[in-house]
Amino acid sequence: MYAVVLAGGGGTRLWPLSTPECPKPFLRLIGDETLIQRTVARLAPLVAPADVYVVTDRRYLDLARSQLPAIPPANFLGEPMGRNTAAAVALAAEAIARPADEVMLVLPADAHIADEAGLRTALAVAGEVAAGGSLVTMGVTPDRPETGYGYVLARRPARVVGGRETFAVDRFVEKPTVERARELIASGLASWNAGIFVWTRATVRDRLARHAPEIVGPIRAICSSGGDEDLDLAYPSLRATSIDYAVMEPASLEGAVAVVPMDVGWSDLGSWSALRDAWQAAASRDEAALAPKVASGAVGTGNRRDLGSSESLVLAGDRLVVTIGLRDIIVVDAPEALLVCSAEHSQEVRGIAEEMARSTAAAPAPMPAQPLASPPGPTRETRP
Amino acid sequence: MYAVVLAGGGGTRLWPLSTPECPKPFLRLIGDETLIQRTVARLAPLVAPADVYVVTDRRYLDLARSQLPAIPPANFLGEPMGRNTAAAVALAAEAIARPADEVMLVLPADAHIADEAGLRTALAVAGEVAAGGSLVTMGVTPDRPETGYGYVLARRPARVVGGRETFAVDRFVEKPTVERARELIASGLASWNAGIFVWTRATVRDRLARHAPEIVGPIRAICSSGGDEDLDLAYPSLRATSIDYAVMEPASLEGAVAVVPMDVGWSDLGSWSALRDAWQAAASRDEAALAPKVASGAVGTGNRRDLGSSESLVLAGDRLVVTIGLRDIIVVDAPEALLVCSAEHSQEVRGIAEEMARSTAAAPAPMPAQPLASPPGPTRETRP
Repeated sequence: MYAVVLAGGGGTRLWPLSTPECPKPFLRLIGDETLIQRTVARLAPLVAPADVYVVTDRRYLDLARSQLPAIPPANFLGEPMGRNTAAAVALAAEAIARPADEVMLVLPADAHIADEAGLRTALAVAGEVAAGGSLVTMGVTPDRPETGYGYVLARRPARVVGGRETFAVDRFVEKPTVERARELIASGLASWNAGIFVWTRATVRDRLARHAPEIVGPIRAICSSGGDEDLDLAYPSLRATSIDYAVMEPASLEGAVAVVPMDVGWSDLGSWSALRDAWQAAASRDEAALAPKVASGAVGTGNRRDLGSSESLVLAGDRLVVTIGLRDIIVVDAPEALLVCSAEHSQEVRGIAEEMARSTAAAPAPMPAQPLASPPGPTRETRP
Repeated sequence: MYAVVLAGGGGTRLWPLSTPECPKPFLRLIGDETLIQRTVARLAPLVAPADVYVVTDRRYLDLARSQLPAIPPANFLGEPMGRNTAAAVALAAEAIARPADEVMLVLPADAHIADEAGLRTALAVAGEVAAGGSLVTMGVTPDRPETGYGYVLARRPARVVGGRETFAVDRFVEKPTVERARELIASGLASWNAGIFVWTRATVRDRLARHAPEIVGPIRAICSSGGDEDLDLAYPSLRATSIDYAVMEPASLEGAVAVVPMDVGWSDLGSWSALRDAWQAAASRDEAALAPKVASGAVGTGNRRDLGSSESLVLAGDRLVVTIGLRDIIVVDAPEALLVCSAEHSQEVRGIAEEMARSTAAAPAPMPAQPLASPPGPTRETRP
């Protein structure tokens, strides 16, 4: 089994810590490691670092390599730009030279998982299912009628693999209303789609060719004959869509998708309020490694002092942050800006972050321009 | 009429902006001027800058002079240390050479007054009362049963001066319970004691000699014969007490104190929540000069952006502060530290500030030591 970690950047909802210069996967948001470091670490011993590959925007290649020194430098694939997960998966499937029948695990670089052993057990089961030719998605057991996620609906009967129930996927439901989400959960057949996929390399290449030829076609042609310059030319015109839309949904209509449910304390850390929840859960489990400085009711990191707050998250740096009597408040003291936000409004951060990015883009670029051609890189070296 | 502004420092409840290096009177907390600058400015034309004196801790003399260039440098009196208002008033009464029958106005450097013309009118009336030999205290019309202030109780009948009711003082009540405060206000005879006093120089010297000889005695002796070194020796053993306790209360028992009520939008800015209230009142009066950047429900200064907050105060500097969905929250982004505090808990800031001061005091002193003897200074030049 080998793993492809997708570190696409973005993460505007975690502004001002997450910025175009250092996006979410590369941040230390919970615990002592960055999200991508923990994503790789929690795969061992199921997948060793030498068998982990990282797909990221070319401008983050140096950052990714520096954070993951145990992964061979050639295992990092740089995209000329982000074109969503369908293109990233297609690039990984075509460019990484692994046997056709080997199981390929695809997962985002920026999720949090409390029960890491539970994740590995579920992935091992998914690997067995995938070896039979299915596209497998890992289904997270829902604990609330969340309207921001996609849901995977299983079809009975279950197929027991490794002592565990797995299911064929009936269909995907994207971002339901809260009433519909309640119905789905009540059916007992719904999971959240966490963007963690398991399949053999041959299966995903075949499915990409059938359902998304306009995406995988140019990439396959470049990987067999072209150079990085061709990737630069081809990428801008690739359709930017998710692997869910491009492949999983059409494949599910043909009965080719399976789901392995898992209840492992997953969070996408998709907002400051989600991060607060993950910190609080870690604190309530008394996980000293993750939440070392729980003071009264405020969780967080850095140089901070609290009197009587509750349900609050404080991310401080070296400068002292004093919080008094807060309830349900997020405080993020980042170099670029300070954010103080009520947890229930944390989705609104995204609009501010996009506004900041636009005003930065309008000003003269603060970063040196990227060379159009990348240095001799992983896509060439790992080409089949 | 001449004025003595007491700039004693302190202001720990406004930490982290107010610090031992730059305490409250010298801060720009509301409007474009520092509190002491506005305190002096609002006296004109009743008292011109040449007739204003400032008493402050010697280490703030340079700061005070630099903020008040219109006041003659010799009008600044440095105390070797803070010994509360009785000592400061005694020093001013003895050291500042003004005619015995001239009216002397004493006022704190760090209060906010919305209706400045109203203040001057009331002070002019108080001056007439004081010319008759009374110690006059300005009484602030209470608008809530505040338990943190001292109350002045008037005795009827009123004496009308300049078309305005003035009263003999029956007694002082310090920090009543909320029930008692309600009773006092319901009587129609109670005012808040704002620490603004009006008397002739002769009257206050006489009263100091009768009620606080152990305080004014050493100061009088030094002013008539000694030098600054003697002040250094005498000050540490002076009783640190307020002019209210030392003189006003005993004098009121002899019927020697009068009160001039005034309703002028006074605030002692004694906490972040009080400052928030003053900002909101200024904003609701649409006073563009005081509250130039009222955005949605958050008031404040500096580089800031708000979405949907209410009843909140944000004091930012150059770095961007983004607030979202806050209610009743104070945010102070100061160089030393960041404070985020619920308004109702803003009194608890004091404990944090004192803790910080102790830990700073325990560490090697960050400031150069003050010379024991002051440079040729105002106490010598203005000595009678």
